Amino acid sequence: MKKVINNANHVVDEMLDGLVTAYPTFLKRLPGTTVISRSDAPVQGKVGIVSGGGSGHEPAHAGFVGKGMLDAAVAGEVFTSPTPDQIIEAIKAVDSGNGVLLIIKNYTGDVMNFEMAQEMAEMEGIEIASVIVNDDVAVEDSTFTVGRRGIAGTVFVHKIAGAKAATGASLEEVRAVAEKTIANVRSMGVALSSCTVPAAGKPSFTLADNEMEIGIGIHGEPGIERLPLEEADNITTILVDKILADINYEKAEVALMVNGLGSTPEMELHIVNRKISEILMEKEITLYKTWVGEYMTSLDMEGFSITLLKLDSELKDLLVQDVKTIAFHV
Amino acid sequence: MKKVINNANHVVDEMLDGLVTAYPTFLKRLPGTTVISRSDAPVQGKVGIVSGGGSGHEPAHAGFVGKGMLDAAVAGEVFTSPTPDQIIEAIKAVDSGNGVLLIIKNYTGDVMNFEMAQEMAEMEGIEIASVIVNDDVAVEDSTFTVGRRGIAGTVFVHKIAGAKAATGASLEEVRAVAEKTIANVRSMGVALSSCTVPAAGKPSFTLADNEMEIGIGIHGEPGIERLPLEEADNITTILVDKILADINYEKAEVALMVNGLGSTPEMELHIVNRKISEILMEKEITLYKTWVGEYMTSLDMEGFSITLLKLDSELKDLLVQDVKTIAFHV
Repeated sequence: MKKVINNANHVVDEMLDGLVTAYPTFLKRLPGTTVISRSDAPVQGKVGIVSGGGSGHEPAHAGFVGKGMLDAAVAGEVFTSPTPDQIIEAIKAVDSGNGVLLIIKNYTGDVMNFEMAQEMAEMEGIEIASVIVNDDVAVEDSTFTVGRRGIAGTVFVHKIAGAKAATGASLEEVRAVAEKTIANVRSMGVALSSCTVPAAGKPSFTLADNEMEIGIGIHGEPGIERLPLEEADNITTILVDKILADINYEKAEVALMVNGLGSTPEMELHIVNRKISEILMEKEITLYKTWVGEYMTSLDMEGFSITLLKLDSELKDLLVQDVKTIAFHV
Repeated sequence: MKKVINNANHVVDEMLDGLVTAYPTFLKRLPGTTVISRSDAPVQGKVGIVSGGGSGHEPAHAGFVGKGMLDAAVAGEVFTSPTPDQIIEAIKAVDSGNGVLLIIKNYTGDVMNFEMAQEMAEMEGIEIASVIVNDDVAVEDSTFTVGRRGIAGTVFVHKIAGAKAATGASLEEVRAVAEKTIANVRSMGVALSSCTVPAAGKPSFTLADNEMEIGIGIHGEPGIERLPLEEADNITTILVDKILADINYEKAEVALMVNGLGSTPEMELHIVNRKISEILMEKEITLYKTWVGEYMTSLDMEGFSITLLKLDSELKDLLVQDVKTIAFHV
């Protein structure tokens, strides 16, 4: 294992310290916690938005904390859900009396811990709601989930819910638009290599030199199948076809995210994007806006995911509202 | 070699097409060239700024094209300087009669080709000047250079020259502030792995499982020495000490860039940043602003570089002026 770390047991703690040191004007770490919040939290007069999950997916989730997106992100250990006691700290830190929305990726551990924190918040009299993102069309159930997994599409949910909250909308209105986003977002990924969890010290799985795994999860959970590595255009077609088969995209307008999983050069993501735009044009699907880069990674995994969000006028407006975060820009 | 590509000979062409497809509102590709320019080029009433170099360093250089930074970026083949005929196209596309500044990284091929294009532009009556960035303190001469190499510090030169040009300053004023930035910027990198050029199909060099190379170049050129891989804090200290020894930083205020070389998880860059901020605090050097991420990569190389820019009030002001690019944000 070659990593630029000190002690494998301290990577999350040291990362969070490094992160707030880099961006002190708009992020802070709640003392004694793994919570990164807006430096001005709680923001008066708006619903607070909290997300988070295991570490190792950077820039998710702290990279999406800021004006117009998340109010706080809770970091767990690498690929491990944050605990309820950390999540409740985030909830309390962002609640200005207008309620708090939790955006949860669909993994058994995350759902259990976020919902436990939700109950704790209710007992403390905080108005609270939650949504569960399950955008990955690859598998219906997986090693870590009942139902579909939540992956890079979660970032669009963060953006749209955050933009709605910034308008001063009610908790119910913010929850409703988050649910609408979840109903319309679909993703799928592919890996060319495994990833190495620092504390494990060896790759989570192995792929042969000529193999790729279609439908991989962001923790290296098994996908649909292993195939011989193909040309970029063919891999892209496999993923896009599976996404497009899942809901009706006829004459749709979409937002697109081409997301690197950690070790994939940006050059390759643009080559993938070129093919996606060709396929969408053939199918008369209109591209509203595209993001290419690293948004929801899997440590040092080589591979990428594609996310399509089917839009209506409300989602379009919210998607391009001003935002000030480290990792998401419009 | 595992890469998400089609034909290794077409990677640059397909990348550039994918890039402008993703960001059509503010970037365009000049037809039949490898030049990416602002979609509104030439911008009237200001100096045009052109940079570029070999591909494989994404998001450099097209990721820095946009309002307040570059007017155009010229892409060569992977790790190969663009040719003078491409560079002159960029110059002509951004010249609005106020002159053009070329920002060149110090590699023999780049210097030769950009200077040849500069002569061609002069012959066509275009007012033109150039600066050469040589921020890498690792080695005095290298495989590809006479003098120090230009690496990630180039991005600060792009930003500051671009911001100055946006004020309507003259070509001589923009050139002067670019030179001042070059005089005050220092960088150094380390690699834990090689990179693989698509057309070569195999890694450019090899490092043993327990080795790192200190002072590596962004094309995999040899650095200062190979050492056993150490803890993040020790690696960071080696690089920062070498940078700080190069010019007088006493009571200085600095901008910092922690730049991933391609495959290094963001988590590790933040761990590095944590240690840098500790060292600077000990030495009473003030951090003005920090950027952590991928800015000047080396394909899929694992490793990072550190850049420090010593600031005065003019450089501080220009560094944080509004900018609208894919890859650089303030």
